[in-house]
Amino acid sequence: MLESIRIVLCQTSHPGNIGAAARAMKNMGLRQLTLVAPEQFPHAVATERASGADDILAHAQVVGSLEEAIADCQWIYGTSCRQREFPWPQQTPAQAANHILQQLPAKVAIVFGPERAGLLNEHLQLCDFHIAIPTHPDYASLNLSQAVQVISYEIYQHWLAHQEQRPVAEPDVLVEKATQSEVTALLEHFEQAALKLGFFDPQNPKKLKVRMQRLFAKAQLEKEEVNILRGFFKFVLQKVR
Amino acid sequence: MLESIRIVLCQTSHPGNIGAAARAMKNMGLRQLTLVAPEQFPHAVATERASGADDILAHAQVVGSLEEAIADCQWIYGTSCRQREFPWPQQTPAQAANHILQQLPAKVAIVFGPERAGLLNEHLQLCDFHIAIPTHPDYASLNLSQAVQVISYEIYQHWLAHQEQRPVAEPDVLVEKATQSEVTALLEHFEQAALKLGFFDPQNPKKLKVRMQRLFAKAQLEKEEVNILRGFFKFVLQKVR
Repeated sequence: MLESIRIVLCQTSHPGNIGAAARAMKNMGLRQLTLVAPEQFPHAVATERASGADDILAHAQVVGSLEEAIADCQWIYGTSCRQREFPWPQQTPAQAANHILQQLPAKVAIVFGPERAGLLNEHLQLCDFHIAIPTHPDYASLNLSQAVQVISYEIYQHWLAHQEQRPVAEPDVLVEKATQSEVTALLEHFEQAALKLGFFDPQNPKKLKVRMQRLFAKAQLEKEEVNILRGFFKFVLQKVR
Repeated sequence: MLESIRIVLCQTSHPGNIGAAARAMKNMGLRQLTLVAPEQFPHAVATERASGADDILAHAQVVGSLEEAIADCQWIYGTSCRQREFPWPQQTPAQAANHILQQLPAKVAIVFGPERAGLLNEHLQLCDFHIAIPTHPDYASLNLSQAVQVISYEIYQHWLAHQEQRPVAEPDVLVEKATQSEVTALLEHFEQAALKLGFFDPQNPKKLKVRMQRLFAKAQLEKEEVNILRGFFKFVLQKVR
């Protein structure tokens, strides 16, 4: 079950953190690691810090962009310790763990930013939820591998509790969530329609696209909803002079 | 309150783990670090890995024996991932966190063994409770600093819950949710636009309106989002022949 959860590390600078994250994952039953443009990988320090989790490193996917890392995922969680300009739906690690387990076996990605600066806003905006680890105000920034440990730990503890408590309930209605690449294509379709209407002025974008992106994230769009909206935008493009 | 909790690291071999443990502690509001016979301390690697928690290292006590480290403590917790010959009263990190907070401001020590072998039985027998972090059977051994992170994290989360004053960050942007009548008006506006486009066929409605209503509900629309969408539909009504 936990195999469909993917840990995505973006532009990691220290190979030691990649190794330590792999160990933290394996300790908690997670196995799928994707690295977006790591500065140094493979690297002897990563292997050393992974210790008995070198198999996770050996199977890690290395890709060039976050979009590529999450294209086939249905639920995307971005970690962030700073409050952003547009607040996204926010969860604690415990809330996220609980929510993630309810979605399985859907494809889930949990995304972590570079050590120094965290995730870019444009990357956070690709996510359905933001996870903030509550920390002491004196020093709020966790080491990257420690953040991976905390999230993985919460998932595994909730998973253990779910195993003990209840047989998995079948959802009443089969609802299939859209993938990240489907939502991205929808957003581009909206932009084309808005341009053609003259509603969107590229000289004065007023954050229109990111606002729609946020609305779509909050709505946790299903495939069927993406199809309806794309149908609507297709009609706009056909019917507007 | 949390100041009376002491983290005790016994015979640590890697100075990097001492630094990383100090950072993990400070992230979660813990400040008292005692080192029992560390192999290398102080050390540049410890300072580097502590990052902004070098003050914790600067105030760390270095002692020669575990007995000395815990002599003035009232509650002693020993961490261990292996089942021992004589099973001690055992707690999960969450149970221990809860129990520790009930004892404060008593003096509490949480003891961690050396990286390679963990705590000796004679050291574990000095403790009131053993804490075992539940891990996946494929790879049960956490890195030392990650174990410190998990325990510190649980203590801080329970402390926040006890305080009932979780420091909720104020959003930078004031977000005002739309009223029911605004959402109803939006839905009617959508219907008019869809009719004019020929996208919506009143003879064959296919639950289009109720699907959009559900999408809007899931998105928990804000006033600003209603305004954007109505602006878009207004352009559709104006521009379509």
